[in-house]
Amino acid sequence: MLTRILQASAQVALPGSRQFSSTTRVLGRAVVYAQNGDPTKVLRVISYPDLPAPEPSSLNIKFLLSPINPADINVIEGVYPSKPTKSNNLTQDGLGSKSEPVFVAGNEGLAQVTAVGAGVSNLSVGDWVIMTKQQAGTWATDRNVKAEDVLKVPDAESLTEAQAATLTVNPPTAYNMLTNFVDLKPGDWVIQNGANSAVGQAVIQIAAARGLNTINLVRERPDFEVLESKLKEIGATHVLTYNQLSDKAVRERIKTWTGGKPIRLGLNCVGGEYTTAMAKLLGSNAHLVSYGAMAKQPLSIPISLFIFKDLTCHGFWQSRWYIKKPAAEREQLMKNLVSLMKEKKLDTPEHEIVTVSAEEGNEEASRRVQQLMQAMTEGRYGKKVLLKIEDN
Amino acid sequence: MLTRILQASAQVALPGSRQFSSTTRVLGRAVVYAQNGDPTKVLRVISYPDLPAPEPSSLNIKFLLSPINPADINVIEGVYPSKPTKSNNLTQDGLGSKSEPVFVAGNEGLAQVTAVGAGVSNLSVGDWVIMTKQQAGTWATDRNVKAEDVLKVPDAESLTEAQAATLTVNPPTAYNMLTNFVDLKPGDWVIQNGANSAVGQAVIQIAAARGLNTINLVRERPDFEVLESKLKEIGATHVLTYNQLSDKAVRERIKTWTGGKPIRLGLNCVGGEYTTAMAKLLGSNAHLVSYGAMAKQPLSIPISLFIFKDLTCHGFWQSRWYIKKPAAEREQLMKNLVSLMKEKKLDTPEHEIVTVSAEEGNEEASRRVQQLMQAMTEGRYGKKVLLKIEDN
Repeated sequence: MLTRILQASAQVALPGSRQFSSTTRVLGRAVVYAQNGDPTKVLRVISYPDLPAPEPSSLNIKFLLSPINPADINVIEGVYPSKPTKSNNLTQDGLGSKSEPVFVAGNEGLAQVTAVGAGVSNLSVGDWVIMTKQQAGTWATDRNVKAEDVLKVPDAESLTEAQAATLTVNPPTAYNMLTNFVDLKPGDWVIQNGANSAVGQAVIQIAAARGLNTINLVRERPDFEVLESKLKEIGATHVLTYNQLSDKAVRERIKTWTGGKPIRLGLNCVGGEYTTAMAKLLGSNAHLVSYGAMAKQPLSIPISLFIFKDLTCHGFWQSRWYIKKPAAEREQLMKNLVSLMKEKKLDTPEHEIVTVSAEEGNEEASRRVQQLMQAMTEGRYGKKVLLKIEDN
Repeated sequence: MLTRILQASAQVALPGSRQFSSTTRVLGRAVVYAQNGDPTKVLRVISYPDLPAPEPSSLNIKFLLSPINPADINVIEGVYPSKPTKSNNLTQDGLGSKSEPVFVAGNEGLAQVTAVGAGVSNLSVGDWVIMTKQQAGTWATDRNVKAEDVLKVPDAESLTEAQAATLTVNPPTAYNMLTNFVDLKPGDWVIQNGANSAVGQAVIQIAAARGLNTINLVRERPDFEVLESKLKEIGATHVLTYNQLSDKAVRERIKTWTGGKPIRLGLNCVGGEYTTAMAKLLGSNAHLVSYGAMAKQPLSIPISLFIFKDLTCHGFWQSRWYIKKPAAEREQLMKNLVSLMKEKKLDTPEHEIVTVSAEEGNEEASRRVQQLMQAMTEGRYGKKVLLKIEDN
C-alpha cells in the first residue's frame, strides 16, 4: 500500500524504501498480541488491509527498522508501567477488530512518512520520523499516527537507518544521565555497570566526547580482553569485571587512576551486590542513577553512604523525560545526538537486522518472531536486534 | 572554679547555676577516653585543675547539661566519621597531658559562659551557649572554647535547661529533613520510622506545627496503645507498627487516610526490610531521607521504585549541615526552633537527668558512667539521658 500512496503523491526515490510493483496487492503486517503474557507464546504476525488516506492532523507512516529493546519484553508480559493502547479498528489503523482488539508490539522505530493529513505543515511524504509517543506499536509495516506523536529526524541524510532507528531510547538515556544529575566537567570520572549494554556503549561514547573519564564494569567472561578492547576503542577509559571490585588491590588501582579525584556519578542497570560494591567507590556528594535492573535484585546501599558521604540515589526513565519535556527540548536533544553521530563520536551499538520477509507467510513469521523472543529472553543475543518487517 | 571566676566578674544569680562556697577548692571533671573502644571499658572520669583566664577570642564555659546521643557511642568506638581533637594540655583546657592526651566525650551540650577573653563582644558572662563545633567534648564541667565555636541560645530565658541542651542535634535534624528535600504544603503527608526516637518526636511536632500529616512507624511492643496515645498527643496523625505494613488491609487503610494523596517524604533511621516496606508506600516523585541505621542493615530498594516512581534517596547529617552553612543561617534555624518551643509546639523528648554528683569520687563516677553506657548500648533507656556533671 506504500506504493500506491507514494505514487499518488510523488514519484521520488526515498532513502531506504523498497520498490514495489504497482500491480502487486500488498498487505500491511504487524507483530501483535491479544493479551499480555510470555512473548514466546502470545506474539503473532498478522496482515491487515490498506490504510485509508490519513485524517486531518495525522500521518500514514511505514516503518523501516524497529529495535527490540529489553523493556519491550516486559511490556508484552504486562509488567511494565507504560502500556500500549489496544487497536480495535475503530481508529484509522485497520488493525484488530471490535471483537478482537490487539496490542501492536514495539516502542521504538524509524518510519517514513507515506501520506500526510490536512493541517500537517511540518512533515512531508518521504520524511524520516521517530516516535515521541511511548508504546506506539512499531513492530509493524504501516501505521496511522498523530503528527504530534512523531518527530522528524534531524539531519536524516547524514544518518544510517540503524542510527536513526535507535535514536530515541538508548542514546538519550545515556545523554540525560550524564547531564541531568551532576554538573560534570572535562576530566571528571563516571563509573557504570552493564557497560556493554546499548546504553552503556552510548555512555562511553558521549562521555568520551565530553572529555569525561569512564570506569566501565562488565560481567566476567572468557573473552574479557576482546570486550575490553572493543569498549576502549569507542572511548572507555578503563574496563573491569564486577568480580574484580572485591579485590582490594583493584580498588586501590582505581584510586591511582583517578588520582584520588572523587567519582561523582555512578550509572546502574544491574542492582544487587555488584552495584553495592560500585556505590562504595563513589566519592562524597555523588549521585547514583539507576535505569535498569538486569540482576532482578534491589539496590542495596549501606545507610552510612547516604548519611556520611551524602550519596543521592535516583532513577532515570527516558519515557518519563519525554512526557515531561516540551517538544522543543525533545527536538534539541535529538539534534545534539545527531550532531555527535555526524561527528562520528556516537554510533549505534553492534546490531543485527532481522527481516520478516515478504516471502514468509504469517504463521511462519509468527514462529520466527517467537523464536527470536526465546533467544532474547535467554540472553542469547549480545547484539541489538532491529526488526525489518516486510508487507506481504 | 566556676565560683571564683563568677565572683571575680559579677555577683549575679545565673539561671541554672549552683551556688558554691567560695572557700571550697573545686576541680573540673570530665568523661574522657585515651583511645577508641567499647565505651563501657574506655571511658573514665578525671579531675583537672582550674582553667586559666581565657585567651583572646575564647571563652571559659561551664556545662549545665550534656545529652548522650546514640552517635556519641559510635564516636567513642571510633566508627563515626567526625572525631574529636585530643586534649594534650598544650591548649588552654588543662585536660590530658603531653604524654597521655585524652579525648573528652560528648558532642552536644548547654553551657554557661563563666569568663570572656579579650575581643569577644557578642557574649557575656552568664550567657547560655550551645556548641556549633562538632565533637566539642561536652561531657565535662569547665572547658575553654573559641567564641566562634559556640552560639548564644536565643531567647534563653524562655527555655528550660533541658530544652536548650537538646537544641542542636535532634530538632534541627527534624526541621531540616522536613524543609530541605520536598516543598511540603499544609495537608501533605510524611511517613517516618523510628517515630519514637528523639528526632522522630521532633518530626511529629514540627510537622504538626506546619499543618503536615504524619504516619509514624514504631517497633511492635506490648504497650503499643500507650505509645500511640503519647505520639498522638504531641501531634502524630497516625501510628502503626512496622509489622502492620505487611498487612494489605493496613496498606489500603493508609490510602483511605491520605485520600489517595501521594506521600511525598519518607524519613528513615532504621534500614532493612521495614524501610523497604515504607518506601513502597511513597508516591511518585517522593524523597526518602535516611539519618540513622538502627537495624544495622542497608537500605534495600526495588530498582523499579527509582525508575518508574522517580524515587530519590538521600542522607541527612546535621553535622554536615553545620559545617556547610554560614553562621547567620545556623542562628536563624536556632531562632525558628526556639520560637516553636516558646509557642509550646516543640518540646524536649522524655528525658532523665543523670547527675555525676560532687560527692562521688572519680572511680565511682567512672563506674557509673560505664554502667550507663552499658544500659544505653543494650537499649535499656527509652528516654534521652542528659548528663549533669558536678565538680569535685
